[in-house]
Amino acid sequence: MATAKLLESSCSIARSVGVLGERWTFLILREAFMGATRFSEFRERLDIAPDVLAARLATLVEFGVMTREPYREPGARGRDAYLLTAAGRELDVVLGVLQQWGDRHLPWAAGPTIERVAADTGLAVHVGYIDERGHEVPLEDVRALRTAAYPQ
Amino acid sequence: MATAKLLESSCSIARSVGVLGERWTFLILREAFMGATRFSEFRERLDIAPDVLAARLATLVEFGVMTREPYREPGARGRDAYLLTAAGRELDVVLGVLQQWGDRHLPWAAGPTIERVAADTGLAVHVGYIDERGHEVPLEDVRALRTAAYPQ
Repeated sequence: MATAKLLESSCSIARSVGVLGERWTFLILREAFMGATRFSEFRERLDIAPDVLAARLATLVEFGVMTREPYREPGARGRDAYLLTAAGRELDVVLGVLQQWGDRHLPWAAGPTIERVAADTGLAVHVGYIDERGHEVPLEDVRALRTAAYPQ
Repeated sequence: MATAKLLESSCSIARSVGVLGERWTFLILREAFMGATRFSEFRERLDIAPDVLAARLATLVEFGVMTREPYREPGARGRDAYLLTAAGRELDVVLGVLQQWGDRHLPWAAGPTIERVAADTGLAVHVGYIDERGHEVPLEDVRALRTAAYPQ
């Protein structure tokens, strides 16, 4: 399915996949969350072909996940930095749940390499469904309902 | 990056992407959650090439996301049904957060087509981080820490 067709879908999963679902994109985002901002940093950390990296970053900029900002270091020519937007930073939860699922179901012999904790309490956190009162709702108790906007 | 290399990564995001990150896989899972079980159902609902669908389903079966079960309808030849495993059903949260992000940041004119609610209370639910006491932790208060298993 062409990306354009995904982006026009009435299904928001399809639209998100249209922007995020290319090979490499989640790993580019992982590096951005780990502090990478420069093209050369992404390329070296991921060992990715420059043309593929350029295409993925262009898509992320086009759809508001990252911004491209010029910067110049003393004595060097100007380059671009790629920075996560507020919308991009929300994708931390997507990476968090992919990490959680991989740690559970595709485990590595030495165990999880990253753990996520609440900064103030130090308690471990996980990703799940939460209701409007801030209470966790078990997966099996969540129902997906069609709204009036669902295509007839 | 070859899938094999992703699957051997110490990073569980990379391993999850190795199994789930191929084009089409999230949409195949979406259809499975919506009730599709037969090859022909996935093919027709997604308008996907049969060889691509077969390859994606084979990967999902290989890594324990789905099982392949023979079934036979009266008068028809035997076929396979593809059913989500318990590990596969946990991916509902991955689809839920992709949906949530798409509804927020790639909105459709008529609004969200699906809403998720708690079965018992009817309250809307969203995906986020939750601590060990069952309390929501805002994204900006979550820290990712390297464990002792992190490669040196």
